[in-house]
Amino acid sequence: MYQERIRRPELLSRVMSADEAAALIKNKMVVGSSGFTKAGDSKAVLQALGQRAKTQELQISLITGASLGHNTDGNLANAHLLSRRMPFQADPILRDSINKGEVLFIDQHLGETAELLNNKHLPEVDIAVLEATLINEDGSLVLTTSVGNSAVFAALAKQIIVEINTIIPVELAGIHDIFYAGNYPHRQILPVLEPHTRIGTTALPLDPDKIVAIVITHERDSPAQIVAPDEKTSAIAGHLLEFFNYEVKKGRLTTSLLPLQAGIGKVANAVLNGFTNGDFHDLTMYSEVLQDSTFDLMDAGKMTFASASSITISSECYDRVVNNIGQYKDRLVLRPQNISNAAEIIRRLGIIAINTAIEFDIYGNVNSTHINGTNMMNGIGGSGDFARNAYLSIFVCQSASKGNSISHVLPMVSHTDHTEHDVDILVTDNGLADLRGLAPRERAKVIIDNCAHPEYRDEFRSYFKAACARGGHTPHILEEAFTWHNRFRQHKDMRIKQEAI
Amino acid sequence: MYQERIRRPELLSRVMSADEAAALIKNKMVVGSSGFTKAGDSKAVLQALGQRAKTQELQISLITGASLGHNTDGNLANAHLLSRRMPFQADPILRDSINKGEVLFIDQHLGETAELLNNKHLPEVDIAVLEATLINEDGSLVLTTSVGNSAVFAALAKQIIVEINTIIPVELAGIHDIFYAGNYPHRQILPVLEPHTRIGTTALPLDPDKIVAIVITHERDSPAQIVAPDEKTSAIAGHLLEFFNYEVKKGRLTTSLLPLQAGIGKVANAVLNGFTNGDFHDLTMYSEVLQDSTFDLMDAGKMTFASASSITISSECYDRVVNNIGQYKDRLVLRPQNISNAAEIIRRLGIIAINTAIEFDIYGNVNSTHINGTNMMNGIGGSGDFARNAYLSIFVCQSASKGNSISHVLPMVSHTDHTEHDVDILVTDNGLADLRGLAPRERAKVIIDNCAHPEYRDEFRSYFKAACARGGHTPHILEEAFTWHNRFRQHKDMRIKQEAI
Repeated sequence: MYQERIRRPELLSRVMSADEAAALIKNKMVVGSSGFTKAGDSKAVLQALGQRAKTQELQISLITGASLGHNTDGNLANAHLLSRRMPFQADPILRDSINKGEVLFIDQHLGETAELLNNKHLPEVDIAVLEATLINEDGSLVLTTSVGNSAVFAALAKQIIVEINTIIPVELAGIHDIFYAGNYPHRQILPVLEPHTRIGTTALPLDPDKIVAIVITHERDSPAQIVAPDEKTSAIAGHLLEFFNYEVKKGRLTTSLLPLQAGIGKVANAVLNGFTNGDFHDLTMYSEVLQDSTFDLMDAGKMTFASASSITISSECYDRVVNNIGQYKDRLVLRPQNISNAAEIIRRLGIIAINTAIEFDIYGNVNSTHINGTNMMNGIGGSGDFARNAYLSIFVCQSASKGNSISHVLPMVSHTDHTEHDVDILVTDNGLADLRGLAPRERAKVIIDNCAHPEYRDEFRSYFKAACARGGHTPHILEEAFTWHNRFRQHKDMRIKQEAI
Repeated sequence: MYQERIRRPELLSRVMSADEAAALIKNKMVVGSSGFTKAGDSKAVLQALGQRAKTQELQISLITGASLGHNTDGNLANAHLLSRRMPFQADPILRDSINKGEVLFIDQHLGETAELLNNKHLPEVDIAVLEATLINEDGSLVLTTSVGNSAVFAALAKQIIVEINTIIPVELAGIHDIFYAGNYPHRQILPVLEPHTRIGTTALPLDPDKIVAIVITHERDSPAQIVAPDEKTSAIAGHLLEFFNYEVKKGRLTTSLLPLQAGIGKVANAVLNGFTNGDFHDLTMYSEVLQDSTFDLMDAGKMTFASASSITISSECYDRVVNNIGQYKDRLVLRPQNISNAAEIIRRLGIIAINTAIEFDIYGNVNSTHINGTNMMNGIGGSGDFARNAYLSIFVCQSASKGNSISHVLPMVSHTDHTEHDVDILVTDNGLADLRGLAPRERAKVIIDNCAHPEYRDEFRSYFKAACARGGHTPHILEEAFTWHNRFRQHKDMRIKQEAI
């Protein structure tokens, strides 16, 4: 069966087992692997490599699109295979290794990894492991449910291992759009003018001589876990929908809005689901990941087109979409992540970017990555690519969590991923703060009033008042700015004040 | 004499005094004014307005390109004329008013103000005050030594006051390149492919009926103060030149490098002056401000073309360049600041961006704006526009100052303008840290070893060691992260430890 997916006959002889292919990856190599938010990742070779690392001295630098499925990152961390990992991960075991300093993690804007590789600002990629639907006669690859960084890996890697995943319907061919902008000093324009603009080829061109192994798999992507909206996510979605209605009323947006980007997670899903009802229509997405909500909106007749770098959906949605791709194909395009996340296109299209914060502060700075200023959660992902250049940059999170022992609004963020300059709108279950055109002291008032959990509001006001008395454009009392974080570290509750000794 | 500079006869009747023109600006108006780093600013009307504010209830929101010359910002602050000011300033009196909370300052990426105005995310501009060399027959303006935000002000303001500055030679006509990208959802590509690409018109088109006043001035821009390189700036320049030579040797750059951007100030001047000697040739700039060093490099035959939004030079250089513009005209272009600072073009051209930091931390985060986390210095300017999308993002500052009582390398920055994700190279007089491809713990070591002042190095190492013992991807001890800042606030010396009480 797989033979019909290898349309360049000379390559048939390069089919081998995952173990044999993994043996081509040597100690200290830099490996570039497909996979973006669990979609289109290596199903066999990286796992086999992890097995081998249990008995052999073997460490690699692993670069991917974004996070991997199938606990691959966790298994590789457990096997102590990873010396370096970039640009993103979302695995609890790997996260623990990173925070212990065992794995050197380089947290990058997802749109920039390909740039850094092209510019040789990162070590050369020795070998690429790329999932594909099929190999064309000319050696080019039809990718699967993500594009990620596969195009740059294919261009730069000395050797390529292809995983042909026969569970992916061949009808998927046609949804990808692969484009190289060229190298300095002669870079091309990225001529995407609308979310549906195609600028490249449907297959990933590569030199077939670089293909050193082909491994056959038959396994689905790890499914996305869809969490039903709860009271808090519904409240956040409600505030945002009210805001969009207000913008329409003011004439700044139409009821088709502008192309949407939404980070992964339950809040984004809740917000997008909110568009199913109401007057919004002819919506589009220009995002990095498409989740269930995208296809729900298409099925509801509310969304006309979606562009991204990956499709990460639940099992139910997979059946409906991937196994029925003909019905969606003309409304979808998957692009390399340096195109889906390109500043140039994000600014030109005027994206409405909705991303999740871990915490934000009273002046509008956002922490997307670090717990208590030190421990990596997942990584910045594409949030910075979108927030900086969006038409509207929106960050959402709950006002407080764990029985309100953690406030997600803080006097000062313990790590900054998005500065005050790049944040327009903040939303919690408590309310929405519109920061456009406000100076820091004005922002503090509206964030405390609208976004902070009421249980923390009095202490915020005391802090802000005392800070203003001391003066400054952005008033702070530096020696107290992290008091709440410190309380949490000591007492697991930001409300418990230090007792006098 | 001025009559020949007003080539649309019906407009001659609108010539009036600065006081008369200033009277058109009413209380609570939003005023958009030309001027970018002291170049091409209003010489008469804003000053007259400041005088009027001494006797009348008068407050305005003032939006410019960037900083103004002639102490205008200071005079307006003294007159309590400014309720709001954006996107940048560099005046000690205004700075003081901002830090007292008397003037609401909105610190913006210089490339974004035009976007926010176009998108109606800021209040509407009531009246524009634009310096021009002359008015063409069709009403279009030939601007002067800067373009700044004049194009967006002209498009959006209800009324326009033009200041014709007869000291500017009419031969300046031709150096500007004015382009509108259009509005959402139909924005155009910015088709700049090289620093010299022209995409627009040499004059700024506008509706002549909007011109309500013309004021004649005859006054130069405030001159830039050129500070000769000293031991520290020479050391920084030396480290950077050594780095560029290394990059050339490694084959990543040629001896023509890639287009340069340099922030304002003595370090940037010292670095650019360094190119006068050595093997570099056919250099270009794609920057926001051109300083003396640009023209020195042109005169030395080292630089072939420079694009920016303003020309801010010393008196000596002004004589040489502006009064002799014919000799430089084919090697210069001045663009709107949303084009000079456009993410799209910066990424496409592969800019080498060199900007000044106030402080940076051991993980590579940079503070460009706030003293001790609270007090505004000038503003982020264009540093973020360039750093985020540059081919190489370089930040420079001295390792320590004021008898070493201030370390400019810190455990944690007190305010973040540029995150670790956007910083490639850090340089102090002490040395250079190449952060490309490094994880936070690796970055800390190289920054402490190479950039920190030796007098602080032991304490850095103690902090970092203790922080690593506590763990985390980015190890910190939050309760001690600002200890040095707090010492400085209390003792004006970061080395003086708090005595036990």
